[in-house]
Amino acid sequence: MTQYSIRTGTTADLPKIFQLIVELAVFENEPNAVTATLGDYVSAFEDSRFFTIVAELDENIIGMVLYYNTFSTWKGKMMYLEDFYVQDTHRGQGVGRALFQAFLNDAKARGCVLTKWQVLDWNVGAQKFYQREGATIEKEWWNGKIYL
Amino acid sequence: MTQYSIRTGTTADLPKIFQLIVELAVFENEPNAVTATLGDYVSAFEDSRFFTIVAELDENIIGMVLYYNTFSTWKGKMMYLEDFYVQDTHRGQGVGRALFQAFLNDAKARGCVLTKWQVLDWNVGAQKFYQREGATIEKEWWNGKIYL
Repeated sequence: MTQYSIRTGTTADLPKIFQLIVELAVFENEPNAVTATLGDYVSAFEDSRFFTIVAELDENIIGMVLYYNTFSTWKGKMMYLEDFYVQDTHRGQGVGRALFQAFLNDAKARGCVLTKWQVLDWNVGAQKFYQREGATIEKEWWNGKIYL
Repeated sequence: MTQYSIRTGTTADLPKIFQLIVELAVFENEPNAVTATLGDYVSAFEDSRFFTIVAELDENIIGMVLYYNTFSTWKGKMMYLEDFYVQDTHRGQGVGRALFQAFLNDAKARGCVLTKWQVLDWNVGAQKFYQREGATIEKEWWNGKIYL
């Protein structure tokens, strides 16, 4: 059995990361939801607008976390986990946990005191995963959004 | 009647902004929740980790929005509204709407295609405000968090 590796994502990984995100949108029956382009990813990444860590197996990227700096007015420097994905066929081998731990370590190394993210109310598997990692889940907030 | 003004917040406004946030935490019965310091605000602001717009009346800051750049993997450049507050005694005069519109305009000027924020499930007044502004409210996401 080949062992996967966990490493910081680079600009060269963005096409594959973008492909994983499109794959996930198709899986969620939202094939047209992704209107961002690979060019948007490259320019945002080069502006340090987000960071990534990838899981690699046999030169393929099989999972990733994508996150960025934010600021909690109550707590201070915060890191927000925007996206977290492991390909179906590579689940159950600790890849998700390794990615999530690497994300927490990097957030801490970057001086953050808190991390946040979101999980869908029906996604019990993900909720259990986060609770095993020591997370608190809050249910009383709703999301507002406006397209510009 | 003196007219309030809406303007970009500067480093010099941070002590007053910090005071408003502590005031809000006390009002929400969470007087000890604010562990961030004014120093955390200053260093984060000077690193462009967040932006603010303030409402000013007779040289007092009576309201503010605090927001920062994020990235939507589906849509691209996003602006997140972290905090939005108008002092009790100055409500009902359009201050909130003026601040919110100024926030939307700045997000657009900074190249964002989407804005997001959160609202408490019991805060019907705020929900109605956002809906009047054309927002979509999503109820199916829960928040995860871990302190580092």
